[in-house]
Amino acid sequence: MKLVNYRLGESVRAAAIVGEQVIDLNHAYVAMLEAQGQARAEKVAEALVPANTIEFVEGGDKSLEEAYKAIEFAQTNEANNPKIVLNQEDVKIEAPILKPNKIICVGHNYREHILEMKRELPPYPVIFAKFNNAIIGPEDDIPYSPITEKLDYEAEFTFVISKQAKNVSKEEALDYVAGYTIVNDVTARDLQRRTLQWLQGKTLDGSAPMGPWLVTKDEIPNPHELEVVLTVNGEERQRSNTANLVFDVNYLVEFLSNIMTLEPGDVICTGTPGGVGVARDPQVFLQDEDIVRIEIDKIGALENKVKSVNAAVKVGE
Amino acid sequence: MKLVNYRLGESVRAAAIVGEQVIDLNHAYVAMLEAQGQARAEKVAEALVPANTIEFVEGGDKSLEEAYKAIEFAQTNEANNPKIVLNQEDVKIEAPILKPNKIICVGHNYREHILEMKRELPPYPVIFAKFNNAIIGPEDDIPYSPITEKLDYEAEFTFVISKQAKNVSKEEALDYVAGYTIVNDVTARDLQRRTLQWLQGKTLDGSAPMGPWLVTKDEIPNPHELEVVLTVNGEERQRSNTANLVFDVNYLVEFLSNIMTLEPGDVICTGTPGGVGVARDPQVFLQDEDIVRIEIDKIGALENKVKSVNAAVKVGE
Repeated sequence: MKLVNYRLGESVRAAAIVGEQVIDLNHAYVAMLEAQGQARAEKVAEALVPANTIEFVEGGDKSLEEAYKAIEFAQTNEANNPKIVLNQEDVKIEAPILKPNKIICVGHNYREHILEMKRELPPYPVIFAKFNNAIIGPEDDIPYSPITEKLDYEAEFTFVISKQAKNVSKEEALDYVAGYTIVNDVTARDLQRRTLQWLQGKTLDGSAPMGPWLVTKDEIPNPHELEVVLTVNGEERQRSNTANLVFDVNYLVEFLSNIMTLEPGDVICTGTPGGVGVARDPQVFLQDEDIVRIEIDKIGALENKVKSVNAAVKVGE
Repeated sequence: MKLVNYRLGESVRAAAIVGEQVIDLNHAYVAMLEAQGQARAEKVAEALVPANTIEFVEGGDKSLEEAYKAIEFAQTNEANNPKIVLNQEDVKIEAPILKPNKIICVGHNYREHILEMKRELPPYPVIFAKFNNAIIGPEDDIPYSPITEKLDYEAEFTFVISKQAKNVSKEEALDYVAGYTIVNDVTARDLQRRTLQWLQGKTLDGSAPMGPWLVTKDEIPNPHELEVVLTVNGEERQRSNTANLVFDVNYLVEFLSNIMTLEPGDVICTGTPGGVGVARDPQVFLQDEDIVRIEIDKIGALENKVKSVNAAVKVGE
């Protein structure tokens, strides 16, 4: 399933993208339950197919299974119900996870990127944080604010945690993964390198475009064979394959859950391939109106425009 | 006001500590409104004096003013109502902020600590993250898990954001501060130094003891004259004064809100004085059963015991 958040006015709700259709999962499930004569259908739906994507992925296989039934029901019986089946052009698609508890990023995790940065293969993953003020969706622009002169892209294959995880082994790791998406780990290189700790260059408002959706795990049985390509204005800048990850998804779930309790909805960005702007010769940084597109096999394409903003503008205004 | 979260069974709610009493702010306010004949008192209270501390601080001066009235009312009229006025020994006091959106820590921010680490005074604050899995309260033990052999303390004067802040100036900064508390920025030095990025040594479960309460801003008009002292088993290890902060509260609100939108409840730890275990000669790390106590003028004392835990134990179980 291609899981999204869609916005219609003030309301942001979980949906599945099917072709050009946006199917509201919770509303579809309520309709199905009511057609089956289920008592307290809304309460049941709130528990099993909730409208919040983080709560939905927490429901695991059971919620996914019920949601698939609801999609089929909606397509057959509710195709003309504008509360249940919407057109993609009538809504705004937001990031599939909007307020994760954590965004954990892995640095230096593709063999060739490590080499281009003139570093050795590391014994441990480098991990750092972004905060959720950074998250924007596939239809948003990447804000280019006057605080930085060196805005850079980083294509990242990303996974999302489905249930609380502590001391999980590599073997069991995928049981704790809800699915996969794309994050552009947009980085202000000048701020990143002001101090030894990268955080201030990593968490500008709008510096984590995410999407275009979360592909649920059932559609990607092997996450370690996916081509990752980033282009700027159509020109290829990064290309690798998740087969080249030094620390793969299974390893990262084990490693991270040994350090900290992971929660449903936690977003883990697995690092970026070679070819970032700061490592090119000559260096090249993002400019106003640039189009950055990241495509990953079996997920899709995340495309955002870079847009100059005045420092005084708050995100969301 | 000394604002806390108290736990009674499954319920965690905002309260004020007054002497040995724990006064449930929301319940007290409902009782006061009902005594005044207010219609829909619970709804009004939910809006103005909510039971969630982050929502409460978001209410700013207005909520604080109403809460003070409610405290006075409760002491006069509800002293024997066990739903409103509780004894501290009958409840568990949790961290005053439980699920902040962000925990932002500042490194190298006391002049003498910078010098002991053999570094120069920095032009910019070093900032890094902890995640909220790290938060525990003043009555909890600091878990000492087998993943680290070098667990260290860091006494930190901490402030909490009251309302959304973006591009706020130093002059207006304190308008965005809800109050002050203490955090022990417990650090696994071996994990911190595995890689250049500190995060993995900073965010172990239970590595951010916070409390004993949030002292609201009205009680501390000048946050830059407070003595900070840390002892381990009664032996003084750190002592400084917030007057020695290189980057003070006003500066940090401006600096951080220029980088990212700050949200109500965001926790900002301002850095630690000299005297951490890793910088001592010989080095000394925390051990099972150690008592770490941090006292800060006008706030109070946060005291936690270090307790060995098995790697397989999840926090909260």
